Formats: sequence, C-alpha cells, structure tokens
Amino acid sequence: MTNLSKFAVPTEEPGQTSDRTPHGEVETPTSLLVRFPASEPLQLECGRQLAPFQIAYQTYGTLNADKSNAILVCHALTGDQHVSNVNPVTGKPGWWETMIGQGRPVIDTDRYFVICSNILGGCMGSTGPASLNPATGTPYGIDFPVITIGDMVNAQARLIDHLGIDQLFAVVGGSMGGMQVLEWAARYKDRVFAALPIATAARHSAQNIAFHEVGRQAVMADPEWCQGRYYAQGVVPRNGLSVARMAAHITYLSEEALQRKFGRNLQDRDEKTFSFNADFQVESYLRHQGSTFVDRFDANSYLYITRAMDYFDMAAEHGDVLANAFWGTKTRFCVVSFTSDWLYPTRESRAIVRALNAVAANVSFVEIDSDKGHDAFLLEESEFFDTVRGFISAAAQKRGLK
Amino acid sequence: MTNLSKFAVPTEEPGQTSDRTPHGEVETPTSLLVRFPASEPLQLECGRQLAPFQIAYQTYGTLNADKSNAILVCHALTGDQHVSNVNPVTGKPGWWETMIGQGRPVIDTDRYFVICSNILGGCMGSTGPASLNPATGTPYGIDFPVITIGDMVNAQARLIDHLGIDQLFAVVGGSMGGMQVLEWAARYKDRVFAALPIATAARHSAQNIAFHEVGRQAVMADPEWCQGRYYAQGVVPRNGLSVARMAAHITYLSEEALQRKFGRNLQDRDEKTFSFNADFQVESYLRHQGSTFVDRFDANSYLYITRAMDYFDMAAEHGDVLANAFWGTKTRFCVVSFTSDWLYPTRESRAIVRALNAVAANVSFVEIDSDKGHDAFLLEESEFFDTVRGFISAAAQKRGLK
Repeated sequence: MTNLSKFAVPTEEPGQTSDRTPHGEVETPTSLLVRFPASEPLQLECGRQLAPFQIAYQTYGTLNADKSNAILVCHALTGDQHVSNVNPVTGKPGWWETMIGQGRPVIDTDRYFVICSNILGGCMGSTGPASLNPATGTPYGIDFPVITIGDMVNAQARLIDHLGIDQLFAVVGGSMGGMQVLEWAARYKDRVFAALPIATAARHSAQNIAFHEVGRQAVMADPEWCQGRYYAQGVVPRNGLSVARMAAHITYLSEEALQRKFGRNLQDRDEKTFSFNADFQVESYLRHQGSTFVDRFDANSYLYITRAMDYFDMAAEHGDVLANAFWGTKTRFCVVSFTSDWLYPTRESRAIVRALNAVAANVSFVEIDSDKGHDAFLLEESEFFDTVRGFISAAAQKRGLK
Repeated sequence: MTNLSKFAVPTEEPGQTSDRTPHGEVETPTSLLVRFPASEPLQLECGRQLAPFQIAYQTYGTLNADKSNAILVCHALTGDQHVSNVNPVTGKPGWWETMIGQGRPVIDTDRYFVICSNILGGCMGSTGPASLNPATGTPYGIDFPVITIGDMVNAQARLIDHLGIDQLFAVVGGSMGGMQVLEWAARYKDRVFAALPIATAARHSAQNIAFHEVGRQAVMADPEWCQGRYYAQGVVPRNGLSVARMAAHITYLSEEALQRKFGRNLQDRDEKTFSFNADFQVESYLRHQGSTFVDRFDANSYLYITRAMDYFDMAAEHGDVLANAFWGTKTRFCVVSFTSDWLYPTRESRAIVRALNAVAANVSFVEIDSDKGHDAFLLEESEFFDTVRGFISAAAQKRGLK
C-alpha cells in the first residue's frame, strides 16, 4: 500500500477509465473535477502523452445563454483554483477575492461566469507529480513528464471544451498566469475575445531561471526529497522547499516594500541576540513564509512548475520573432506592468506590446505606479483595478454583453 | 583525535601562548600570521573576549621610512588576503590584481605598502569558527562568538599596531570591505588619512538581510551541517553551502549582465531535454559557482560573516544619526557606487555622502556607469580605475608622499 501524500489526488485505476463516461464530472468537497479517460490523452510538448488526467476547477457566477460571458482566470506558480470567496482548503480569502466575486467592482460574478482551474502539474487536484502513475500504481514523482506552459493551456482548453464554451470572453492572469494568457491568445486565436496578461513576460530571463534553479537545487539537496520519491517514504523535503520559497519570496517584493514593511526592525526583542536566531522581523517573516508554504504545496509540483516557466519563450517557439505568435490575432489585449516589479519588469511587458503592435493588434498598455513589487498584482491597487475594470467594461460593450 | 577540516588553522595550545613573545610572527607557505596570545584578548562587541587569536595577512611593496605609505585593503564576504599577484592557495590571480601590484596603474606597490588581512571569522588563516577553541581543544563551530564588522576592524587595528604603523595612508575596500573602511574611519579617526568605501552601505537593508537569511537557512538545513559540528564528523554541508552561494551570486550580478552573459542559451545541447538537468548555461554556471565555492570556503565562516554584515548599522550605533559616526573626521573620503549594483545601490552611497557632508568632511562621490552589477567593483572598469587613481594620487600629494 503506497503511502500517499495529501497532495496525491488519485486518478482512476488503470483499466477502469475507458468504461466510464468521457469527461467524468465529479464534485469534491473543495473543487469540481473533470476527468479525461485514458482514451483521451493529452499530447504534451515533450512528446509524451498524459492519460488519464484530471483538472480541478472552480466556477463563479452563471454562464449566460449564448455562453459569451466566460472569463478564464489563470493562476500563478503557487496559486490555485480558489480565486474568489473563501478558499475551502486554507480557510482564507480567494487569492483575487478583492477583484473578483459577487458585487466586486472589477469582475462582478453577477455579470460574468468566472472559471479558474488548477494548472496541470499542480497539487490542488489537477494531475501532477503527486498523482498516481497508471503504469505503476504509485505516484509519478519525477517520472511525471516535464510539462510546459503550452501544455497547461492545452489542458485548460480541454476543460473549456468540456464546459461547452467556444469562445472565452476574456482570459486573465498575472505572473505565470499571464504567460498562460499569452499562450491562450497565441494558440487559440478564435477562442479569446480579450486577453489581460499582467505582471508577466513572454520568456523567462536568465535571472528568472537563476532564481528558479536555486529553488530547485534547494529542494533536490534535501535528503528527504528522496530523488522525488518521498511520497512512499512518509516524508517531505520540508527544509529544501522552505528555502526555495524564501528565496522566491524575496523576488516577489520590491526592496522598498521590504524596507518599509520590516526595515531593520527586531522581532520581539530590544537588542540583537548575537546568535543565529531570527533577530530581525524580515528573517522571522521569511521563515514563516517558508514553513507555511511547505504545508500547502507539493515539492515536486514546485520543481515541475518552475521548470515549465523557465522553458517558456514564446519568441523561440515562433522563429525568434515574438510578433509571429500573434499573427492575425483579433483579440483585444490589455498589458499591465508595475513600476517596482523587478521579477517581470516593465521592459518585458513592453516587448509584448511591441510584438502586438507589429501585428496591428488592438492593445492597450498600462504601467501602474506601485512600490510593492511583483506581488502588487495580487493587491488592491486602485489604479490597477480601474485599469482592468475599464478594459473589461469596454470589451464587454464591444462584445455586446449586457 | 579531532578530525580537523582544511579550514582549521590551529591556534596555539592553551597555556603555551603566554610564554611566547607577544604578537608571535609566523610565516606559513601561503601567508604571514600574527598571533596574539591569551594575555592579549580581543574584546568583542557581543561582550565576550577572544583569546588567543591570530590574523593571517599579506603585504606587497615596502613600508617607507616614516611609515606613511601604507594602504590597508579590506576584503569582501568571500575574499581573502591575497589581493595581488597569484593566490598561492587557488593558483589564480589575486582578487584585485588588475588594480593593485607592482607597476599597476591604480595602486602601484613600488610606491605604496599594501596590507590585506583575512578577516576575523574567516577561513583563510585568521581565527574563525574552524579554529581550535582553547577551552575544549576542538574547533569552535557555533561556539565561536558572533562577531561584528567593528570586531573585524578592531582585530585589523591590532595587526596595524603590530606592524608599527600609526596612521594608514588609505583604507580601501568594496562591499563588506567598504563597511570595514567606514568603521575604520569612524573608530580610528586619526589613523586613516584617506578612505575609499566602494559599492557598499552604512547598514544592511531588509532585502540584504533576507538574502543572507536564505543562505544561512540553506546551510543549516543541510544534515551534514551537524549543528555546526561537522568538522569532527568528516563531512561538510556541501549542498547547503552551494545553494547559499548560488542565491548570493545572483545578487552580485545585474539582470542585464546575466542576460548578456547567458541569456537563454542552452549548455552543450541544441534542444531542451525536458528534464531537471542544467539545460541552460546560467544553471550550469550557478551550479559551478556553488560547487567550487564549497571547496574553498568554510560553511560556518559563511554563517558568521553574513551575520556580521546583517548586524552592520552605523547609524544605529550612533544615536540613529549616521553623521555622528564621522563627527570631527579629518579623513578625506572617496565614495564610489555603480549604477547597476542592486545589492548596495547608489542611494546607499548617497546616504554615506550626505552624512559626511553633514560633518563638513572632505568627500568626493562618483557613481560609475556600469551594467555589470555589484561585482563591477572587482572588474577592470576604466572609469572606476581612473576615479580611484585620481583620488589616491591627490591624497598622496596632500600627504607629501613621493
């Protein structure tokens, strides 16, 4: 009997899936799940096929009669499908709850039907490295195929097919969510009326890759990673994943935000202890970020998702010309960056805008003045909210939505 | 019998030191060493005393008759005393060899007597956590006292006393070396004719502390750290220290430099491998940086030195007014920063300059245009070299040096 981690959402047993209704829809206590049987594999960019696979998702609001009010929200590296209301797993508000929900000013779910799915490779119900490998009956671990942002989007497209939606009114996402938005617009040109890539980039820079590699090495250096087979050992690489999260977390905040929030303030003490205790608030904060992350995230998912981001390079996929990715697009774009985001700085957004301009796309671009760093896209920044609301409203009018 | 690591430079046996000549001078194959006996302890800022202790150092050039041509060079976090010529330990050029040496254009050792000592807490011969604790006869490990930049400078002052030098013509250093320069100027006002703090700050910011804390947690998470007692176990926390170095190394380079140097180039392959191999050059480079660092540096020294840097806050030591640190100074200062240094950005240098201006100090400030990031201070940048040469020449003239 394999000792499954809490992240292991068992896929169906091999041999059983083909007898079932395709696209089996299941409601779990925390999410909706769509299961694609072995007969409907997902073709991956690495050349392998994934089957069976499942996508966990949430919806908010009601799909209108002509299915024209659907907004797909794409989550970031460590996000999940619980974009609004209360996250039933953590008990905390959904990660974009201030922006999206019933009566919310930016995306009101009384008007729009919002869909958010856990990404392929994730650990919140969608098939990932903690899922059972039908070939062995044990969790994939690092036998899980290395996936790409494009694979994630293709899996989402299968969900959207399942929901019977031809064209999404909008695809919205920040950070890695924004990369998915770009892939959606490039791969499914007729299926995206409006696209909002936020605080993102069309490729991972050397520095982006470098930070991710530090995180992966931290995880893999932890003996409890067990070459990726920790599920069966009843352990998790806590220390390694915690260090990875700490390093990454620094990149999500601006230097100014860290200074303002913590400065050199001491934590619960008046004097330095002349020790390696967490004397400084910023140390205590980072340690807390690291340790709580381990409780909610699967270490192998972290490896696979960071790898997908590092592999992301839309220009390289289109003859080294980013504009080629968007050739012939009719989608209207709103590209948003934040002044103090040093993870995906404004120049990365400008590169996207230039590519869209080169194909005469309908594009607006706004750089939001914020000193909060990359994570500003998750915060209630009024200029940011106004920008998104304005763009969505105008697009809705154009689309003829009531 | 304790299994000493290669970093353990045994201090003298307890009880033997007091019989010897004070300040015993020893020449090892790789360095000069001055040993301060148990009767001459170093008072530390944590309240403890360190005794005996030793300082390993190198000199270049000849001290003139009136001892007025001595330049103390202070090294950075992972530097050493081998500032010029060939480092006899690594076989590589000294770390500032392009700037300092016989016939070198910036600091010519035919004219100046250059001294560089391994910092207290280091692992290149000066007393540090790998040294023998006289109380136990085994390496200190984490029983070594937590030291400060001020302690490092006080230890250096003992070396300068030993060399019979009243006033240093100049104290020069970059990064943590610059912090030592500032402490020298503040603590020994009459002993520093000219001071060059380069690519540095008068305090560690929240982001600086955060990156160091990630590195320390990576080391301490490695089971082979053995609570700091790895010397006796015949192991070293390779993986943890390597991850720490990788994370730190990213902060030493600008995003532009990483992009130009590596971009998204693949390492020895034409295609992505869809694996966790080091597909990208930047990954391979970082892994190499990590693994070679472990061969030359002691993990506990890394913990102690990063802690000293985090504790560094000159304003806090002077009633929260940085200018107070320099009250009454007669030293002439040259403060240098680099445009793309995001570890110690120009605003930190400006804070130093403002404080010096507030006490009407003789100060020049130059921000060097460079896209190479923090490590630019180690590189042959002509504007930087011209600045230092010009300042040193003018100061030498003022000092009446031939």
